[in-house]
Amino acid sequence: MGYPETAEGFMIEDQKKWSDFKKQEFKLKPFEDRDIDIAIDACGVCGSDVHTITGGWGDCPLPICVGHEVVGKAIKVGKDVKTIKVGDRVGVGAQIQADLDCDNCKADQENYCPNGVDTYGAPYKDGTIAQGGYSSHMRAHEYFTFKIPDNIETAIAAPMLCAGLTVYSPLVRLGAGPGKKVAIVGMGGLGHFAVLWAVALGAEVYVLSHSPGKKEDALKMGAKEFIVTGDKDWFKPYAFRFDFIINAADATDKFNLPDYFSTLKVMGKFHNVGLGDKPLPTLMAQDFAPNGCYIGASHIGNRPEMIAMFELASKQNIKSWIEEIPISEAGCKEVVERVQGNKNVRYRLVLTDFDKAFGKRS
Amino acid sequence: MGYPETAEGFMIEDQKKWSDFKKQEFKLKPFEDRDIDIAIDACGVCGSDVHTITGGWGDCPLPICVGHEVVGKAIKVGKDVKTIKVGDRVGVGAQIQADLDCDNCKADQENYCPNGVDTYGAPYKDGTIAQGGYSSHMRAHEYFTFKIPDNIETAIAAPMLCAGLTVYSPLVRLGAGPGKKVAIVGMGGLGHFAVLWAVALGAEVYVLSHSPGKKEDALKMGAKEFIVTGDKDWFKPYAFRFDFIINAADATDKFNLPDYFSTLKVMGKFHNVGLGDKPLPTLMAQDFAPNGCYIGASHIGNRPEMIAMFELASKQNIKSWIEEIPISEAGCKEVVERVQGNKNVRYRLVLTDFDKAFGKRS
Repeated sequence: MGYPETAEGFMIEDQKKWSDFKKQEFKLKPFEDRDIDIAIDACGVCGSDVHTITGGWGDCPLPICVGHEVVGKAIKVGKDVKTIKVGDRVGVGAQIQADLDCDNCKADQENYCPNGVDTYGAPYKDGTIAQGGYSSHMRAHEYFTFKIPDNIETAIAAPMLCAGLTVYSPLVRLGAGPGKKVAIVGMGGLGHFAVLWAVALGAEVYVLSHSPGKKEDALKMGAKEFIVTGDKDWFKPYAFRFDFIINAADATDKFNLPDYFSTLKVMGKFHNVGLGDKPLPTLMAQDFAPNGCYIGASHIGNRPEMIAMFELASKQNIKSWIEEIPISEAGCKEVVERVQGNKNVRYRLVLTDFDKAFGKRS
Repeated sequence: MGYPETAEGFMIEDQKKWSDFKKQEFKLKPFEDRDIDIAIDACGVCGSDVHTITGGWGDCPLPICVGHEVVGKAIKVGKDVKTIKVGDRVGVGAQIQADLDCDNCKADQENYCPNGVDTYGAPYKDGTIAQGGYSSHMRAHEYFTFKIPDNIETAIAAPMLCAGLTVYSPLVRLGAGPGKKVAIVGMGGLGHFAVLWAVALGAEVYVLSHSPGKKEDALKMGAKEFIVTGDKDWFKPYAFRFDFIINAADATDKFNLPDYFSTLKVMGKFHNVGLGDKPLPTLMAQDFAPNGCYIGASHIGNRPEMIAMFELASKQNIKSWIEEIPISEAGCKEVVERVQGNKNVRYRLVLTDFDKAFGKRS
């Protein structure tokens, strides 16, 4: 076998040995008329990858190849593809299919399509399991494949496709812009994008972090203020201050949420983008009553938002803060262990050097 | 002593004997220039009264006189009062003071004023404890005193002042109107108003209830559909259906919230107005992700909303569904025990016949 029937990827066979990657072949879905084959050159390392392989989010089909922040070159396009041509530099994020026909899809809410397919670990209609981007090739539907602007480098673009979009979408839907005060909790992979985008959109940005370690970086990214939530009564000076909060922290289970809520304006939103392994802290309906606030979450973003995000990054020359690691069994092991242990990740690890692992592909 | 220094009320001395009312005198706050003295003629019985006297919401200052759905006659008005004159029929709801000077108050969000004073059980600045409407008189600030339209009877108007406003406010803030599909969970005192108002505002109204017992009433009130949440998979036909849900149920701790969430449109809201004794069920951030929904709550409503609600009720001739009980030690005992046990309350009990208990007041 081999491409175009199969691809090669660094895969996990057992959630108990979640950093034990083995290079293996896997089957690609049957090629359809709106599909694009991509020879992958970079893949960002998302918290979802770790939640999946460790079993933090439950069982997953095994063996699994994770990775959903994929950039590469289009090497084959289906006959009905209109937006991409062979040779284009393209990206794929965390969603790879939707029915494009339901009420949600028709309303540009395909990220909430009940028939959506995740980029890895989800079954296509024919039973093939979608596999991710720690791999040589990806076969993706045109609607979920995006041309990367020329002035954004491959490794810089990769993490925008999931982490970037996941915070860009709620920022714009909640109205980030001039005159708005936006708080970002947890400056990791997602959080650092939230700061970069919110600043670029013109909002006044406050970063909330449990310790002062990332203060300098936050201010460099354009934040107005850095608030250390480990300090006693940190929330008191910020009562009714923020239009909304984007919570990108993974440890929300340890938060005293009413303290955070108290910093929101009336009807403000505490919006989660990090989906942790653990439940939220116990809440009473009363906890929302002092300002009529809300808590919720969102799931990635839609195609128009992805396109707008790349335009913003391109026009304002916004760069992801990343560290590149060559892809290999050892490289994959290193990245997921560092992300799992939150070990000096500032602010996204990106697997690169795919030619070395998989050879030149075309 | 006696009025104007004191009033008489049916009071609770011990949360362990929470239905053991004794008629007692209590001190009124010092009269100020924007205050109005009201000779009370009717008072609705709110779930809050029961949560307070039973200790479900924790300790409260004792002895306490509850009741915050008050209608009576203005018998004295301060020299700076402009909106009410002696002899007017007026009402007071669950809030009796705010600083009227903070950013929230200036933005017509006085119901979220950090210096707000609840109608009973809260201290005024001079230390006097505000006492409620199971009593002969109330002394209220003009801003929280409302003229009752002539065509709304006293006992019918009373429960609108808390229960009515508490659901009217989120309904209008969340956009109830033509083309909107609104679900109301829990058709008790609050829920029945939510149905009446949402129908009056032009929304398509769905009532969700654990059992079919109130179906006929819901349809009479104008609901389009009655959904029995005790039925298996009740939520499946309603996926992505409702613009928002007003949850007026007291037993939310027993709900499987993701089932309810699944019936919301993208970014729809599950909005709580009932504030129970128990925490909400445990939630994961993931539970919001299938449609990017939110959960939250609100606290009563503001003055413009109260005025608009009474105008709506007056114009469309909307009547609260109530049962009148003469006020007395036995009457107070009966109403709180019936509300606590949810015993055949359709849909609000209102204490009346105050002249018999307290004599003619003027």
